[in-house]
Formats: sequence, C-alpha cells, structure tokens
Amino acid sequence: MAEHATAPQQGSAQRIAARFRERIRAGLLRAGERLPTIRSVAQEAGVTRATAQNAFRILQQEGLVESTVGRGTVVAERAAAPGSIAGPPLSRAAVAAMLALQDGAALPPLSADTDALVADLAGLQPDPALFPIEAFAACVVRVLRDSGRIGGSLGYGSTAGDAGLREVLAQRHGIGDPERVLVTSGAQQGIELVIRTFASPGDAVAVSVPTYHQLFGVLASHGVELVPIDAPDGVADLDALARVLRRPDLRLFYVMPSFHNPTGVTLDAAQRRALVDVVAATDVPILEDEFEGELRFAGSEPPSLAELDPRRLTITVRTFSKALFPGLRIGWIEAPQELVAPLRALKRFSDLESSPLLQAALRDFVVEGALDRYLTVLREALRERHDAADRALRAHMPAGCRWRRPDGGLSIWVELPPDADADRVATRAALAGVQVTPGRLFDPLRRPSRGLRLALSRVTPAAIDSGIEILGRCVREERLADPAAGLGSTPLIL
Amino acid sequence: MAEHATAPQQGSAQRIAARFRERIRAGLLRAGERLPTIRSVAQEAGVTRATAQNAFRILQQEGLVESTVGRGTVVAERAAAPGSIAGPPLSRAAVAAMLALQDGAALPPLSADTDALVADLAGLQPDPALFPIEAFAACVVRVLRDSGRIGGSLGYGSTAGDAGLREVLAQRHGIGDPERVLVTSGAQQGIELVIRTFASPGDAVAVSVPTYHQLFGVLASHGVELVPIDAPDGVADLDALARVLRRPDLRLFYVMPSFHNPTGVTLDAAQRRALVDVVAATDVPILEDEFEGELRFAGSEPPSLAELDPRRLTITVRTFSKALFPGLRIGWIEAPQELVAPLRALKRFSDLESSPLLQAALRDFVVEGALDRYLTVLREALRERHDAADRALRAHMPAGCRWRRPDGGLSIWVELPPDADADRVATRAALAGVQVTPGRLFDPLRRPSRGLRLALSRVTPAAIDSGIEILGRCVREERLADPAAGLGSTPLIL
Repeated sequence: MAEHATAPQQGSAQRIAARFRERIRAGLLRAGERLPTIRSVAQEAGVTRATAQNAFRILQQEGLVESTVGRGTVVAERAAAPGSIAGPPLSRAAVAAMLALQDGAALPPLSADTDALVADLAGLQPDPALFPIEAFAACVVRVLRDSGRIGGSLGYGSTAGDAGLREVLAQRHGIGDPERVLVTSGAQQGIELVIRTFASPGDAVAVSVPTYHQLFGVLASHGVELVPIDAPDGVADLDALARVLRRPDLRLFYVMPSFHNPTGVTLDAAQRRALVDVVAATDVPILEDEFEGELRFAGSEPPSLAELDPRRLTITVRTFSKALFPGLRIGWIEAPQELVAPLRALKRFSDLESSPLLQAALRDFVVEGALDRYLTVLREALRERHDAADRALRAHMPAGCRWRRPDGGLSIWVELPPDADADRVATRAALAGVQVTPGRLFDPLRRPSRGLRLALSRVTPAAIDSGIEILGRCVREERLADPAAGLGSTPLIL
Repeated sequence: MAEHATAPQQGSAQRIAARFRERIRAGLLRAGERLPTIRSVAQEAGVTRATAQNAFRILQQEGLVESTVGRGTVVAERAAAPGSIAGPPLSRAAVAAMLALQDGAALPPLSADTDALVADLAGLQPDPALFPIEAFAACVVRVLRDSGRIGGSLGYGSTAGDAGLREVLAQRHGIGDPERVLVTSGAQQGIELVIRTFASPGDAVAVSVPTYHQLFGVLASHGVELVPIDAPDGVADLDALARVLRRPDLRLFYVMPSFHNPTGVTLDAAQRRALVDVVAATDVPILEDEFEGELRFAGSEPPSLAELDPRRLTITVRTFSKALFPGLRIGWIEAPQELVAPLRALKRFSDLESSPLLQAALRDFVVEGALDRYLTVLREALRERHDAADRALRAHMPAGCRWRRPDGGLSIWVELPPDADADRVATRAALAGVQVTPGRLFDPLRRPSRGLRLALSRVTPAAIDSGIEILGRCVREERLADPAAGLGSTPLIL
C-alpha cells in the first residue's frame, strides 16, 4: 500500500518535470528565467510541495535548472535554446510542434481533482458505457481466426486500405468508386495528409475559426501559415474569405460544416451553397471535416460541400473515433479521383497503412449491421443528454448566457455574458469539480473568449444537471468577484 | 461465374489506368508523349488486349490521353504537368512522394502469375502459418471486455503510448526509464518522426546503402536530400562517411546494424565501435533501425549503437511487424530523454496516437510470455529455412555466386557473378514462378546490381529448394542469352 501511495506522486513529479523540460527545450523558458515557486507549482498542479520539489530536483539533475541565491530556481545557461542541450539542433518542424503542444497545454482550466469530480464536460469522446463491445469482439476474433494465411489481416495489406471496408464505406456514403476512399489513421492523419497534399512550407491555409485545436500544430509543424477566417456564430465571414482566397500562397480552405467543434453549428444548405460559391470562384480546394457527421439525432442532412462543389475539389475527412471507438484510430478520406494518388503516396511514406486487422474487423462490423444498431442507441443517448443540458442551462445559467441546441454531435457551446471571461469561469468550475473547455483553446490567436464547450457524451443527464448548476454558480461568482483580485488571467503553466 | 470472370478484368483495367494516371499526374509522362501500344501494355501486365484497351478508354474519358492519327495514344496537352488537371497545384511533398512511389513500382520483376508460383522469395514478412493467433485473440478479447469504461483501451489514450506496454518494452530492452519509449505506428512512422525531428526541407541525411527502399520516399516527401554512403558488403565506407558528416546541412545518419535489409549483414562489436567513433566526433545523431532485432537464431548480440554512443545521440527504431504481426502497425522508438519531447510532439500532430486497443493487447501478450514463446518457434523456423537455403544455394547456383549466412532475420542476400544483371535474372525467375527482389530496388541511385534478396520467411524448406533450383537455372540461362536480345533492361511500367 505504501508503494502504491508513492508511485503516483513520483509519476506527478516526473510529469511536472516533463512539462518544464519541454518548455525549456522549446525555448519557451529562456536561460536565466525564473521558474515559479515550489509552492505555486504544487498548488497549480494539485500536488504536495514535496512532489513539486522532486520535480525541480529531476530538472536540476538533468542540468536544466539551477538554484540561485536570492532568485530561486532559474533555467540553466546551457539548457535554454532548442538544441543546446548537448545535442544537435532540432528541425523547424520539431520546434514548431513542441511550441504548439506547449501553447495548448498552457491554457486553463486546471484538471479537476478526480476525487472531487462532479461532471467531466470537457472530454469530447463517446461514452464507453454504450460501446458495443461484444459485437466488435466477435468481429475481431473471427477476423483473427481467418488471418493465419498469406494475405490475411495480420500481414501487410495495402496503403489505400482494406478493399472490403472501402467498398462498404463507398456504399454507405453514395460514393460511386471505392478507389476514391483512402483509409487513414484517424481524422487527424486525414487532415495532415490533405494539408501536405496542397501546402508546402511557406504556403498558407484559410481556416474558419474557432476550430479544432489540434489543427494548429499540424499546420505549424509543416511550416504552413494558418489564416483565420472569423466565424463567430459558426458561419465564416464570406467577404473576408473571398479576400483571403486571393492570396497567391493560399492553398486550402479548412471547414467543419456539421456539428462544428467547438460551436456545434451545422451550416444549412443555403449557407453551404454560399460558401462553396465563394471558394469555387478560385482553384483553392476545400477540406471538409465531417468528424461527427454520423451523429445526427434531429433534423435532416444538408448536402455535403463535396456534393455542392462543381469543381470536384472538395476532400472530405471522416472518422470512426466519434461514431464508434477512438481507440481504433481509423478514419477515412473521400477524395476526387484525381487526388487519391498524391494522398495515398504521402500516406505510404508516413506509416505504410493503417492496421489491416482493425480495418477488417470494422468492415465486418459495418457489413453485419452492428454499426447501424449502435448508432441508433448512441444518437438516442445524445438526444437525451442534449435535452438534459438544455433544461439545465435554462434552469441554472444567469441571464445573458446564450446557447443553441445542435441537431447532433457530442457537445453544446455556451456563450457567457459580454463581461465574462471563459478562462476564469472554466478554472473556477474545475476547482468546483466541473470540467469544461474555454473557447480560447479553439482560437489560433488565443483571443479572450466568452464561449465554453460542454461535452455531453460521457455524462448522465443527472450529472449534466449537477454540472451545469455548478457552472451557473461559477459564472455568477466570477461576475461578482473583482477580476483583478480573481484567479488571474495569466495562462497557467500546468 | 460470368460476373466473377469480368470483375477482375475490370479491376485490372482500373489498375492499369491508375498507374498511367499517377505517372501523368506526377509529370513522369508529359504532354504529347506517346503511351506504349495496347499490345505491349497487355503483355507486360499479363492481361488481355481488351483489358488494356479498357484502361486506355478510362484515361481517355478522364481527358488524360487522346488518340491521334499516326502516333497512337498520347498524353493530352491539358493533362500533363502536376496540377494541371482542372485542379490546384500539388505541394512539393505530394509530387515527390508520387515520384518516389512510381520509381519503386517501375522496377522489375513482374509479379509471378500466382497459379504458376513455385516460391515467393520476395515478400519480407513473417509466415502467417506460424502466427500465435489464439493467444493473441485471447489478449484482445480480454482487453476489449475491460474497455467499457473511461480510460479504457477503446477510448483515447496518450501520444506516448500505453504506459504498461512502454514499461515492459523498457524492461525487456534494459531501458531505465519508460519515458524514453515512444510507441509508433510501425517502424515506418518511427523513421519518419526521427527524420522530421532533425531535418528541415533542404537539409541532408546520410544513409548507408543499399538500404530499406521505403526510406527514399520519406526523405523525398520532406524535401530532405539522401546522401548515400556506399556499404557494398554491409559495412559503410567510414572515410566517405566522415567526409559527408562534415557537410553543414547534414542532420542525421541512418543505418541498420543488425540483419540489414537487404544484405542480411550484422555489424560486429568492433565494426559498431568504429562506426560510432566516426559519427561521435560530430553532433550528428544516429538513427539505428533495428527492424529485425528480435530475430536472431545464431551467434550473440553485439552492443547496440545506442549503448556505444557516448553522446547519447542515437535513436533506435524497432517494430513488431517482423517479430510478430505486420497487421498491428505497432513499432516503437527508444530515444535519449531529451529527444522524447520533439518526437512526441510530431507524433501528436501526425495521428494523435497509435491504437490504444492494439497496444493494450500487445502489452498483455508480452507480459504473459506469449511473445517469447512465439519468438522461440519463429527463430527455429527461420534457422531451418536458412539451412535449407544454404544447402540449395550450394547445390543449385552456378560458380561465381556469393552469399553469406546471416545469424538472424528473414532473408538472405545472393550476389551473382560479375557479368550478371540481377534485374534480368529476377524477371526471368518471376516468369518461371519464383519471385525474388533485385538489388537495384534498395539503391537510391538505381545503379545496376548483382545482388538478389531472397526472403525465406513464408516458404517451406522444400519450396526454398525448388525455388533456388529454378533461380540457379535462370542465372545460367541469362548468362547464355545475348543481353541485347534478352528481356531488356528498361524498367517495366507495370
């Protein structure tokens, strides 16, 4: 038991040390710069002072920091700039990726103490309690038993993906030719492949913002500039978009037309047509991210941007991470015939192919109707949770808050009154046991945001109600508190 | 049945069309350039003329080619250059990746007609007949049944990889800190991540050649120059290496010290020390590719380059693709502490993480000893097959052929007499039902090669004997034939 009690603390020290190490390595903390006090690090990370001290000791042993008289712990001279730690210089890609990761990690809120957790409204992933585990296990076992031969799914497959899976995906989505489907290692890889297909280092990509935050690091790590197009209510400013599209270095326009992350907004057919009209006047391709496309529980499905694009220059990225299991890491791209070859070539040299075993199991799972049966259950559960959230928001949020009920997806977006700051509310809520995601995370410019994303997928209607009740209280408290004396708007390191 | 007979032919036409489409798209076939005749395309692809004609018809419908009077089928004006097909320009990465893929695909030999196949000595992958399927299935099912909760292996995990898997890998390989292990989507991703960590576009990487051919496309698609260091007998020319390491744009040295692909050579301890001495005089990191490191069936294991590198600047890439199942797409990197953060950041934005489900199953499989039990069986089977190959080579190969018995790994490398051409022998062998891989595939400069790689992993000792008997006959026939009147040394398109 004693050992058990020690291990997590040691892990915490390692984790804290790793955070600082990465920041030093990435040049975010420079030589001679002071680290926060042991006390404040312990407080922010929710650990004992001894643990924080251990973290500093690790860094000291690695020669990254040193104790000074009068100035506390500072970054060691030789540790500061990227590449200066007894090592070779890192590539621009590596430094950019580290900075992007640090930048995201530096944002509030704190993680709530899991013992005191009332509701996790932060994690955007499906509820494991609903997972159709037995049905999927049966598919995996069947595919495994059939794999003991050359060409079986435990051997090498093909870069494009399992032929059977591509065929059923093409059928489900009305794609005439399965050759237009490329299986990817999640939507994340799909997005990276599409960006790399069009944009070289120094080029630019227009992005409707706020948006999926992991996109920032993809662009940065490939030396591609992100040009934000403001879409405060989920609808991109078309005049701004038209202007940006005229830039000669502009290579791609990224947009999430359905159940947008984080705002939940779905563009209707007219909005989609207007958007495509603007882009179709150029030869800039569209990257249509349909990460939650299967999660509609109300309303009817508008045409996809790919269907509306007369040029056939829209590439659609989809994934099984939200519609089934994130742990599969299987997504897929629907591309115009002429664009499959470059996407596939880039995929080949990135990871050869995605797991043939999981693809084959997924194929059987879809073919035998298990996916559709699960989606029926999942959509119903989401509808109930969105209902609960809507009721709770009406009951508990102070006047001046706005939200819109989405027709699908895992989350709802709440806008606080004009004088509120989502970062501070989110931090306050985390301390009270409710995790939500403040809007600034989704803005590449990190502007102050009034928005909070509430993920509803892994919480019961009862927990949604309790969580939103606490959230409403936090908004009220935050407005009463003197902002200057409040929790502070400086990004927290941990 | 009639439908069944038609489908593959249509598939063949699509496949042939795709090949030409990619070559046109990549700029390998230019506007106005003539395509081969229907007859020769049919012959080379081993399909009927009608099928070849269908392929041309597909290309014509797409506007990529046009029929001309007197000149046959030519590439259409508007189709030629990359990006000119009613579309946006492709990135440099995409064009480079397509060219690299085409370049490899354009090499001999033809695929043998599978009906006439005597022995597949080409595919470098483990034998599915030996796969420990039930033991692995049990692990997957157990892990799946345990995954219906938050934090389970069907949800999101962590970019670094499953903590338990990293711990057992660290233990097996004597790595003090599991934090130094990063799980990757196969060795292919491991290699790409290490290259991207150090080399920016315009930089250079030194590579001991011949070498793993998928490396060429990785470097090309990231705009990184490959600087070949000749290692004809598997041992890099250290003077040449020392010279190249002085280049200011040189960022990394890539080498496979154990069971090298394609030569099978393992560097002994002295050779490793000499190699590390040369590199350690600089700050250029070493990428040590240990893709078959677990497959030793004779001799003892020399120290790894990572152990010998006094700078701690060697990163080792390993994989379960050869030691277990390629279909998992799970590999891993052992990196010095300071280099984990950039590798992890690049991995994050590439695909978030590798499948937590498969990682958890693999962890259990290793922990309960199933991997070690399987490796005992696999190593013994490989030893038998290498014995059979050695006997067959002695019995059937003409004088002047050389080979060396490796102490492990899936393949053996045979050098033909000085006047023989491995491409032509490989093509002749394929027509006689034996697939082998000629050395030119592994040379980034595509120089003529006397070497043939014979993969022994998926063939019985009897098939190895029959295959090598035919191969020996092909070598003799090829030397008798007038090379000018022979099968031709021009790369075949298909």
